Amino acid sequence: MKKDLLGLKDISAKEIENILETAGTMKLILGQPNKKTPHLQGKTVVNLFYENSTRTRLSFELAAKYMSANAANITASGSSVQKGETLIDTAETINAMGTDILVMRHNMSGAPHLIAPLVSASVINAGDGMDEHPTQALLDMLTIKEKKGGFKGLKVAIIGDIYHSRVVRSNVYGLTKLGADVSVGGPTTLMPPGMERLGVKVFNNVEDAIKDADVVMGLRIQLERQKKGLFPSIREYYRFFGVDNERLKLAKPGALVMHPGPVNRGVEFSSSVIDGEQSVINEQVTNGVAVRMAVMYILSRGGFED
Amino acid sequence: MKKDLLGLKDISAKEIENILETAGTMKLILGQPNKKTPHLQGKTVVNLFYENSTRTRLSFELAAKYMSANAANITASGSSVQKGETLIDTAETINAMGTDILVMRHNMSGAPHLIAPLVSASVINAGDGMDEHPTQALLDMLTIKEKKGGFKGLKVAIIGDIYHSRVVRSNVYGLTKLGADVSVGGPTTLMPPGMERLGVKVFNNVEDAIKDADVVMGLRIQLERQKKGLFPSIREYYRFFGVDNERLKLAKPGALVMHPGPVNRGVEFSSSVIDGEQSVINEQVTNGVAVRMAVMYILSRGGFED
Amino acid sequence: MKKDLLGLKDISAKEIENILETAGTMKLILGQPNKKTPHLQGKTVVNLFYENSTRTRLSFELAAKYMSANAANITASGSSVQKGETLIDTAETINAMGTDILVMRHNMSGAPHLIAPLVSASVINAGDGMDEHPTQALLDMLTIKEKKGGFKGLKVAIIGDIYHSRVVRSNVYGLTKLGADVSVGGPTTLMPPGMERLGVKVFNNVEDAIKDADVVMGLRIQLERQKKGLFPSIREYYRFFGVDNERLKLAKPGALVMHPGPVNRGVEFSSSVIDGEQSVINEQVTNGVAVRMAVMYILSRGGFED
Repeated sequence: MKKDLLGLKDISAKEIENILETAGTMKLILGQPNKKTPHLQGKTVVNLFYENSTRTRLSFELAAKYMSANAANITASGSSVQKGETLIDTAETINAMGTDILVMRHNMSGAPHLIAPLVSASVINAGDGMDEHPTQALLDMLTIKEKKGGFKGLKVAIIGDIYHSRVVRSNVYGLTKLGADVSVGGPTTLMPPGMERLGVKVFNNVEDAIKDADVVMGLRIQLERQKKGLFPSIREYYRFFGVDNERLKLAKPGALVMHPGPVNRGVEFSSSVIDGEQSVINEQVTNGVAVRMAVMYILSRGGFED
Repeated sequence: MKKDLLGLKDISAKEIENILETAGTMKLILGQPNKKTPHLQGKTVVNLFYENSTRTRLSFELAAKYMSANAANITASGSSVQKGETLIDTAETINAMGTDILVMRHNMSGAPHLIAPLVSASVINAGDGMDEHPTQALLDMLTIKEKKGGFKGLKVAIIGDIYHSRVVRSNVYGLTKLGADVSVGGPTTLMPPGMERLGVKVFNNVEDAIKDADVVMGLRIQLERQKKGLFPSIREYYRFFGVDNERLKLAKPGALVMHPGPVNRGVEFSSSVIDGEQSVINEQVTNGVAVRMAVMYILSRGGFED
Repeated sequence: MKKDLLGLKDISAKEIENILETAGTMKLILGQPNKKTPHLQGKTVVNLFYENSTRTRLSFELAAKYMSANAANITASGSSVQKGETLIDTAETINAMGTDILVMRHNMSGAPHLIAPLVSASVINAGDGMDEHPTQALLDMLTIKEKKGGFKGLKVAIIGDIYHSRVVRSNVYGLTKLGADVSVGGPTTLMPPGMERLGVKVFNNVEDAIKDADVVMGLRIQLERQKKGLFPSIREYYRFFGVDNERLKLAKPGALVMHPGPVNRGVEFSSSVIDGEQSVINEQVTNGVAVRMAVMYILSRGGFED
């Protein structure tokens, strides 16, 4: 059994389907007037976040609380990190306090993989550097499954800053395992080499990427990076890659509009697309809580099959 | 039914009395050895604070926890705000995670009014710019009701920085609706025009304002502002408007001394007044928890009557 | 009855033994799949931290949550502190919200002693300036008791920055009361005068201090201080006082290696010592949760005997 969820690269299609099915059940709880279950009663969940994040941290925190866990947060500012303690020592300390599930976000790729074998707690990767963000991809997949019924032959176009995105990597691993046909599109300056080897089609213009897509997923452009004068600027990005109503028509009718958030209005998408009928962005957020409940529940029951 | 509490401007005298009565019951719980009730079991309360606040945030957080809610905090630093997300998108995201009650503090007047119609959660205004801070006024009113028995014909003098105070606006709306006679006093530089139209008497010297008052309420002077060399300086403020034992004698015997905190000792009041027998400042804090429990309970049961 | 735990200076050997015994019971709970007990059901624990701390704050927070308390955190940044409120007013405000246990860390020695008589809540000192850190010493003592069976005649060597350490003071008070034989060792520049009067042996070289010791406890060197060019530099410290495998052989075979954390690898201890068989550093962390559960439980049941 695997005690951790570090990424979708090393997890089977069957396990992904198991998580999505469990998440579907957990979502029913979210719709009830009383969102409190005993699934994690007496279990301890610690969110250890070395990068700022409202939505992911809150989503894990609420998921834990909905299942009655003891939940606590640690953020990098205000932590021993600043006192020069190593990541390993910090993680072992948190582990020794009775932690059952350690949710970790870190700016270094591989940080959770380093920690997982050293602690008895289950480690959930909540985003590591430019590597993976598995629960984000799982919530995207739950949303697609609910709206489109399945993944076989489905065309998913992911547009934006492919280079820096851990979201795209997790989605590529997960979606291709379940039979989807993934395209990525973005400026050449934001496109890493070798994406084709992951089994995806690569486009350097948005029109070709989203043509006939069932799902159009935007990735956040890091405004900080673009402001430094790199190509493309934010305006250039929107002009050449931003998805507005006109470009969205290139996708299939009823194609889903998705985004991991926080969205930059008028950069990745026009506001009309974000707020339009095809957008499932808020539903993704709800599914994020359901997916995190499912992952924590499965890990607390012994973990994933090898 | 109104699902939100945005201010006391648009709420009836009857509803205010209903909140105060419910708060009286909630206060009984605070006095018991076991402060835990099932009133909000399975409900989710998120505190979204764009301004620093210990007391208000902690008061809402404990009120939620006393009633068994799932409670979580978001503060502006460390949030998506810094990533450029709009307030509306942030609020909709929090809403989509299963939030039942969204407690919001924001430096912009009207921010909670903008959000309330866009989310299914009940929005409680925990202070917006220079507009309103309804739960602060409600706790002031609960304290006055407990100590003085009622509001009809009661003379309440509010002294300090009237211009920048959301506390004074909420108190004026609430107190006048319940029949109190409100005076405001402060330097002309800190007095907004048109206060008379709200049905209050305006004084530019403290002696006239507090003469024969049943309640003397001080408002926090923003030291940051006064340090910039504006009139009055802190020393000048205390000399001309600070309430010491001598000036307090102008009010009725047994007049209540109140302050929303945090208090600047030797600015709004002398320490002897703050720590004196007439001060009910700490009781206000306790009543704050009771009032917030009452408001959250009423909103979770369907909200206020129109 | 004493309602507070301010330090080990003013508490009897019998009470210390009572805490350690209760902590032993609490530790059993930590080993169970369901870490949730009703010991503090309906009680409110507020952590008020004026200094950064991951481990101590998290340890108290989890201890409170394991016993079903309402737990909330306040840290200095983001608090009324910045608005100029006095410590006393802040504490009285928190107290008035129904707080039963106020856990306080403050950079000023004596801060919790100032607050304790002014509030109805039990105050636990979680570290005040260079004075005491009683729960740290209690967890050290629990670890020693578990591993060595008792304290009578046991030789405990504490090495490091004795001058600035509140951990050493609490340990000296506690350990000597229970019959241990305490030595302190460190550079003369980091050794306060008068340590002998506390009943300990003082050494200015590490070899003499740890000779034949049953326990070798390292104290954190404040890197910030040493970087300012004071003697000793970090390299000098490690050369003259750092404990590596070679120096550890001077202690008794099987001597415990302890550290309150966060540890500076290659400063107080070599990594081989930290990760070696004699190290009980992670066990100390677990015992910290157990000790804090015990202290909070005893205080919630009426406090310590005089």
